[in-house]
Amino acid sequence: MLTIGIDVGGTKVLGVALDPDAPAHVLAEARVPTPGGGDGLVETLLALIAALTTGLRPPDAIGVGVPGLVDQSGRLHMGPHLRRVQDLPLAALLAERSGVRSLVDNDANCHALAEHAAGAIVGVDEALVVTFGTGIGAGIITAGRLLRGANGFAGEPGHMIVDLDGPPCPCGKRGCWEQLASGAALGRFAQEAAAAGRLGAVLAGAGGDPAVIRGEDVTRAARSGDAEAGDVLLQWSGWLALGLANLVNILDPAVVVLGGGLVDDADLYLPAVRARYDGLVMAGDQRPRLPIVAAALGGSAGAIGAAVLAAGGT
Amino acid sequence: MLTIGIDVGGTKVLGVALDPDAPAHVLAEARVPTPGGGDGLVETLLALIAALTTGLRPPDAIGVGVPGLVDQSGRLHMGPHLRRVQDLPLAALLAERSGVRSLVDNDANCHALAEHAAGAIVGVDEALVVTFGTGIGAGIITAGRLLRGANGFAGEPGHMIVDLDGPPCPCGKRGCWEQLASGAALGRFAQEAAAAGRLGAVLAGAGGDPAVIRGEDVTRAARSGDAEAGDVLLQWSGWLALGLANLVNILDPAVVVLGGGLVDDADLYLPAVRARYDGLVMAGDQRPRLPIVAAALGGSAGAIGAAVLAAGGT
Repeated sequence: MLTIGIDVGGTKVLGVALDPDAPAHVLAEARVPTPGGGDGLVETLLALIAALTTGLRPPDAIGVGVPGLVDQSGRLHMGPHLRRVQDLPLAALLAERSGVRSLVDNDANCHALAEHAAGAIVGVDEALVVTFGTGIGAGIITAGRLLRGANGFAGEPGHMIVDLDGPPCPCGKRGCWEQLASGAALGRFAQEAAAAGRLGAVLAGAGGDPAVIRGEDVTRAARSGDAEAGDVLLQWSGWLALGLANLVNILDPAVVVLGGGLVDDADLYLPAVRARYDGLVMAGDQRPRLPIVAAALGGSAGAIGAAVLAAGGT
Repeated sequence: MLTIGIDVGGTKVLGVALDPDAPAHVLAEARVPTPGGGDGLVETLLALIAALTTGLRPPDAIGVGVPGLVDQSGRLHMGPHLRRVQDLPLAALLAERSGVRSLVDNDANCHALAEHAAGAIVGVDEALVVTFGTGIGAGIITAGRLLRGANGFAGEPGHMIVDLDGPPCPCGKRGCWEQLASGAALGRFAQEAAAAGRLGAVLAGAGGDPAVIRGEDVTRAARSGDAEAGDVLLQWSGWLALGLANLVNILDPAVVVLGGGLVDDADLYLPAVRARYDGLVMAGDQRPRLPIVAAALGGSAGAIGAAVLAAGGT
């Protein structure tokens, strides 16, 4: 069965053509910019599918992962990066326009499906995949299947409130976990440190403007031995660990997988996350040691997972 | 099949004999004090079982619910009210001593099983049952079954940290949800209000000693129109709602059931919980309205659920 998997990101839409009999075996790959506000999203996806299947036969199924609330029918209720898209029956529209069976799910759910099918948690029945980027997403695997909840909206720990007086979130609340532990939050912590007179080297590298400092600047400086960058990374790691501990108290997974762009630098912060997590989880000394690992699949994980979804993986 | 269900509480152990073919039909009921520190727990349970089955035939299965971390083999790793019990293979010991198949699970899981078998969520496949007492427990139903996690430790949102600078918890952390939203937390908020010169009528009723004010005193005063008691109840309701919103973001249940002693006064605070929850859950305006309801079964719910567990309910 030839399946198409598409990951709709904040800036780009990545598609793969996959032979699910050999999971994660990518036959073709293509990417286009994410249409501004989400306008013409269906047309963008159709053009990408056409590009992916050039020289191949027509696909048997299409899967799409999008950030936001996607219900069980594949309707996108809202997506943070697709402002002008609301209540879009994306799966139905895609199926109608392409003539191919189409499924749509949350992008973090697709990440989890990919790691479960061909990544860090193959054969693991209880697992948690958390992706850290502009926001935080999660896919929860229990009894070997994705936990989708009553509406398909499960797995949004990014909006778990962990500090009522914390930084404001675009969602309208304060202190959502993703304002303290996402990749974007790492950048904000660094900006605050630079504005307060610390992180001199990082600030100089950013041309003296704190506002342009990003999370990657912190990890790069920390790797080269910048102690103040290490402190910022530690501050962020603590919040990351707190949210993980909360989730483990609720879900008790056998493995936690961390995904998203910052995973390439996991060696820099995982030991700190680990130590802080052990101190924050309930009865840490009574539990088997929980593996907290980096995602095994790279930047194509979301698209691969969308193809797994299309192939009937659950 | 004649089953015994036993709920080991902080102060009393309640047992029921149940005909599971007529769920929640209690043939016999008995209670004894919880042995101090948990010493002699197995003997206490055996004596209770003997009392329950006097005049009945020997039971076919025994179920026990205990607060704390219980693994899938029925081993109690730790229980907050059973200090001297650690790593007790309770199910194995009970089976050996009684000659009857025995299962042990977390008490909040048993509550959820009871509500699912014969209470507020019969036939509901995605549900969350949260019990508020000295602490906070939860049973998570997904795909029609209890979510137990990798070790059986799932469903401990009471130790979800929601305020790093919050009140200390016996678990060693600060700002665990149960320090802000349990029945005991309501009592503490009232004590703090009284110590600060508010809650005059409640304080007088407590003989002038803030330390003896309990949650029930607040609800009683609020019911009789005491505005300051109403304010304390509102403060507590806000924290209750915050934790529920966090859990719904993660689990997306179709129904939330609130259990525990304070449920009899749910009419006093559910509207406030409801309003605050609607403002805190992610994308509240994009979701179907979530029913937040009081538990349907009373004080025997935990014991009934333990019997459901024994009968093979999952």
